[in-house]
Amino acid sequence: MSSDLKSKFIEVYDTLKSELINDPAFEFDDDSRQWVEKMLDYNVPGGKLNRGLSVVDSYKLLKGGELTDDEFFLASALGWCVEWLQAYFLVLDDIMDESHIRRGQPCWFRLPKVGMIAANDGVLLRNHVPRILKKHFRGKPYYVDLLDLFNEVEFQTASGQMIDLITTLVGEKGLSKYSLSIHRRIVQYKTAYYSFYLPVACALLMFGEDLDNHVAVKDVLVEMGTYFQVQDDYLDCFGAPEVIGKIGTDIEDFKCSWLVVKALELANEEQKKVLHENYGKKDPASVAKVKELYHTLNLEGVFEEYESTSYKKLITSIEAHPSKAVQAVLKSFLGKISKRQK
Amino acid sequence: MSSDLKSKFIEVYDTLKSELINDPAFEFDDDSRQWVEKMLDYNVPGGKLNRGLSVVDSYKLLKGGELTDDEFFLASALGWCVEWLQAYFLVLDDIMDESHIRRGQPCWFRLPKVGMIAANDGVLLRNHVPRILKKHFRGKPYYVDLLDLFNEVEFQTASGQMIDLITTLVGEKGLSKYSLSIHRRIVQYKTAYYSFYLPVACALLMFGEDLDNHVAVKDVLVEMGTYFQVQDDYLDCFGAPEVIGKIGTDIEDFKCSWLVVKALELANEEQKKVLHENYGKKDPASVAKVKELYHTLNLEGVFEEYESTSYKKLITSIEAHPSKAVQAVLKSFLGKISKRQK
Repeated sequence: MSSDLKSKFIEVYDTLKSELINDPAFEFDDDSRQWVEKMLDYNVPGGKLNRGLSVVDSYKLLKGGELTDDEFFLASALGWCVEWLQAYFLVLDDIMDESHIRRGQPCWFRLPKVGMIAANDGVLLRNHVPRILKKHFRGKPYYVDLLDLFNEVEFQTASGQMIDLITTLVGEKGLSKYSLSIHRRIVQYKTAYYSFYLPVACALLMFGEDLDNHVAVKDVLVEMGTYFQVQDDYLDCFGAPEVIGKIGTDIEDFKCSWLVVKALELANEEQKKVLHENYGKKDPASVAKVKELYHTLNLEGVFEEYESTSYKKLITSIEAHPSKAVQAVLKSFLGKISKRQK
Repeated sequence: MSSDLKSKFIEVYDTLKSELINDPAFEFDDDSRQWVEKMLDYNVPGGKLNRGLSVVDSYKLLKGGELTDDEFFLASALGWCVEWLQAYFLVLDDIMDESHIRRGQPCWFRLPKVGMIAANDGVLLRNHVPRILKKHFRGKPYYVDLLDLFNEVEFQTASGQMIDLITTLVGEKGLSKYSLSIHRRIVQYKTAYYSFYLPVACALLMFGEDLDNHVAVKDVLVEMGTYFQVQDDYLDCFGAPEVIGKIGTDIEDFKCSWLVVKALELANEEQKKVLHENYGKKDPASVAKVKELYHTLNLEGVFEEYESTSYKKLITSIEAHPSKAVQAVLKSFLGKISKRQK
């Protein structure tokens, strides 16, 4: 996407924000208007905007031509709804994880004036999605399907977050719970639905499609989301910190990462003992032992194998789709993430 | 409402819970099913259930006769949606207010195994509402209106909570922000919409009514909700602890209570100074000085005057309504709250 399109996309944010802080369903005063504006600017537009922009991209590929101004605005508004939903998840996740930094700045709840008010701000962000949908899509034939879609995907994301939280529960640190099956469920529900399926589903609805006819598209996108998260888990340990922009701490944090799950699967009894004794510990010696074991088990090679098998399977699934336009949407997604280094 | 009806209402909760922990939109396992079940039992059904039951009551009055089993189930399901929404607000509010006790037991987030996972549980509670609506109302002509209604009321509640939080912001303790107008806005948005308007609006939609034709009903219910909250503020200071079941701490907590707002309105300069110096302080001597000033200003009398004026105004508004059935719904609500001691 060109930088021109990106700046047009960001203009839509300004319009939506201005509508929200003048929403007649609430009597705003200066203090509350300023609070919401600051909260939105701090939390909504500062990411890479990939999820939001991909609604516009996807709709364009489905249409197969340039968008009218109206179409661009509506596709962008849906894209921003995805970004708003993500902002809501991130604000609350940061509170739950006691994080410090998000997108290069202190987490919202860490600001002295904000604190626990952030929980309600998260709720407000979530509430903005149906406000945007109502304002711009109330008369569309697919309005109710949009509401159902956002509701279902939010439910799936919160459920994925729940199993992630209860699986990682402090005090019950037993690796025994970690398996490929729980890893897949966490990734699929917590990340894949909202990051991969939701943007394309928005574009399909806006294009007049019935989502019940697109279960295959959903399956491919959820698979792609899983592949994306496995890459993320891999890069957390094996990526170059100067490229990925952070130093991974999945081992220290006892995360249910694809790497530890694979290691548990491939390890002999002695190696399993090393994992049980060192995974989730903060001291560098323990972390080093886990990394050494990952090398011994050749997880780099296992990952490369996984990556190329997944890629081929995805291509085959995509090419089985009857519509060339839908194929183009899915291939565009796949192109953005395959063999990524960051 | 008879205890027989209440136990039938609670049976509906069991059905809804069982549907939610077997929702095909998520792959539950035993751990996650148990977590959700325990979380629901802890947070949803333990209140007085007035809001939920009033959907059934209101629908019955609108219909003017006995309900079929199907009608009873659907009206109860909507009632439970209101209770679920309230549980979501309470779980998050307790985190934000750092509360300890709710409904006679420790707040959910205070349980050692729960902690900050409670924030995601709040989100799950909120997500259950559209799951219940989709399962039982997807085919109804008023389905989209139900979704819009819950979305709008949730937005209003979260906005009310926002102005409450930013008005009470620690560090900016200045009574100067408190006025009758900000008090009314907080109460109206944070409490009245979801507690008073929402149950009746659910019953009206289920009865086939268009809510756009019932703005007058909304206005009366919001007014009633305000009256209810003023009573609450009054009882916090002047109610008998053994009757209201708690010892009020609005003065210590620097709450924007109707009493302090009225006191500010009626006080002379010297009395205002007493308020500024003592309101929001934990020590009993300061609290006593504030209470003494309330007595000096005869706030008991001012409240009695407010109560009787409000009551008369409400009766007049209700009797202006063209439908006797709607009048009955509104009078039933008013009867439950007028001159209450707890």
